[in-house]
Amino acid sequence: MAKSVTLVEVGLRDGLQNEKTPVSPETRIEFARRLAAAGIKRMEAGAFVRADRIPQMAGSMQVVQGVLELQKNKRIPKDVEFSVLVPNEKGMLEAIASGAKEVALFAACSESFSLKNINCTIDESFERFAPVMKLAKKHKIRVRGYLSTCFGCPFEGEVPEARVVQIAKRMAALGVYEVSIGDTIGVADPGQVEKLFKKLLKHIPAKKLAGHFHDTRGQALANILTTWRLGVRVFDTSLGGLGGCPYAPGATGNVATEDVVYMFKGMGIHTGFDLDQLIALNPWVAEKVAHTLPSSVGKAGRLKPLGKVSKEDVK
Amino acid sequence: MAKSVTLVEVGLRDGLQNEKTPVSPETRIEFARRLAAAGIKRMEAGAFVRADRIPQMAGSMQVVQGVLELQKNKRIPKDVEFSVLVPNEKGMLEAIASGAKEVALFAACSESFSLKNINCTIDESFERFAPVMKLAKKHKIRVRGYLSTCFGCPFEGEVPEARVVQIAKRMAALGVYEVSIGDTIGVADPGQVEKLFKKLLKHIPAKKLAGHFHDTRGQALANILTTWRLGVRVFDTSLGGLGGCPYAPGATGNVATEDVVYMFKGMGIHTGFDLDQLIALNPWVAEKVAHTLPSSVGKAGRLKPLGKVSKEDVK
Repeated sequence: MAKSVTLVEVGLRDGLQNEKTPVSPETRIEFARRLAAAGIKRMEAGAFVRADRIPQMAGSMQVVQGVLELQKNKRIPKDVEFSVLVPNEKGMLEAIASGAKEVALFAACSESFSLKNINCTIDESFERFAPVMKLAKKHKIRVRGYLSTCFGCPFEGEVPEARVVQIAKRMAALGVYEVSIGDTIGVADPGQVEKLFKKLLKHIPAKKLAGHFHDTRGQALANILTTWRLGVRVFDTSLGGLGGCPYAPGATGNVATEDVVYMFKGMGIHTGFDLDQLIALNPWVAEKVAHTLPSSVGKAGRLKPLGKVSKEDVK
Repeated sequence: MAKSVTLVEVGLRDGLQNEKTPVSPETRIEFARRLAAAGIKRMEAGAFVRADRIPQMAGSMQVVQGVLELQKNKRIPKDVEFSVLVPNEKGMLEAIASGAKEVALFAACSESFSLKNINCTIDESFERFAPVMKLAKKHKIRVRGYLSTCFGCPFEGEVPEARVVQIAKRMAALGVYEVSIGDTIGVADPGQVEKLFKKLLKHIPAKKLAGHFHDTRGQALANILTTWRLGVRVFDTSLGGLGGCPYAPGATGNVATEDVVYMFKGMGIHTGFDLDQLIALNPWVAEKVAHTLPSSVGKAGRLKPLGKVSKEDVK
């Protein structure tokens, strides 16, 4: 097992999408630039969804074009990969128009969540993926697949493992290069994670799987560690833990990028990130979304020794 | 490796000691009763320290006598074990007078922390332990040892592993039944934890070791999981994550009992706790200390499904 890990920064999409305060496209472009400067190589830039339903993602066209422009002007390193979420063919056409080289699809493992979240059944969502995949092939656009509610659904509760495995196989069979297994509401624990991923790995190779954990119940790092030990090397994280959990008010959502980087760096695993720059981004982003970010490392920072104490000092 | 884990509840001592709002002895007794009702079998009840230095621990005599009285009256199960921190012979005499059957000693792994925290060098702290151990033997009182700053010191920064191993051996040699290895300021990561515990386990058997992790940088659960995998079965936790971190303002201190229970229950490991009762204790304790508690599971609760959604519901 290679001693490295890749993080996919989802703060700009999954993070901001769940924030109350919308952030302007200009600020999102600058956010992407700062993330790239801190060493992030894979990033979600936005979503081509209905702005009346998800106003936080309005202006995603401007954001995608903006970051690609910065990349052309070498203000963002050329090896940074941007992805954009597309729910259907219409979104895919916008992605093509934007110049995006990667898109992400999104399916749920529970019918209730699929209906509530994307207003169609799971089968219907896969029907929508067919023309998207066709266009992707034609335009040589990489496609990533997200699977949500893999460990529990806010409406149905338990989600059967067999169903998750079946939908993950279906997603992989579409031709996506990676399937991100999501704990959308942060209910998973390391026991459940180990069981599900062991089953998934019987059908999908580790290099095609990613873990997407929310820290709602504080389990995300333990879950990531468990998944990493099974050979998975890609995890979705969000700067500062951006994005709350709509199903648990007051609780956190996406696991914070800095917390994950702190862990892997401590384990001697290469991440390619500058932890200090990630930490420094916290107050900047906090100002934009108008609240303190939940990230633990973002709040506590690194250990900065106060200086040795001698016997004379405490007399 | 047995599929069980023991948690030592430190909320009443390590937790409350770091809270700004002092809590009355009467409330602390009721807190202990509620913790015991939720299944907690080992608990720190207080500390016989100078009330002018640590006012939060004032009235510890009343607390210890109060919980023992409740136990006599069967309002606290008789298998619950209470411990009280004693810094020296004077504290030990108070512990004996209180009727406590277990005490805890405290030593640091960094000279600066020892000087700042207990106003003596590490050697001097061990000198103070000698008469305490003698009295403990005479009065058949169990003694537990705490080692602080095992993974980093707020003043000196890095703490050499060899020194931690040496002080842990010295503590074990005193005759304590268990040495609790503390990440006092929450800087440890799973890599560091694995390295240090592997070294400790060469000298001290797993059944004599405990892990005491703070969640300041979000690593506590990953650290506990790592330590558990090495065979250690006892961890110190604090209800709701009570107790901040004086060296990282705004950051959390002790790992929350509920977060740890959630993880181990999910892993199918016996804890003996009623998670719902622990969660329900959060608002009660929050009121006493006058702020929301940082525990993730305490805030988010368990997954409570909202009910199935049908196609008609989303039309």
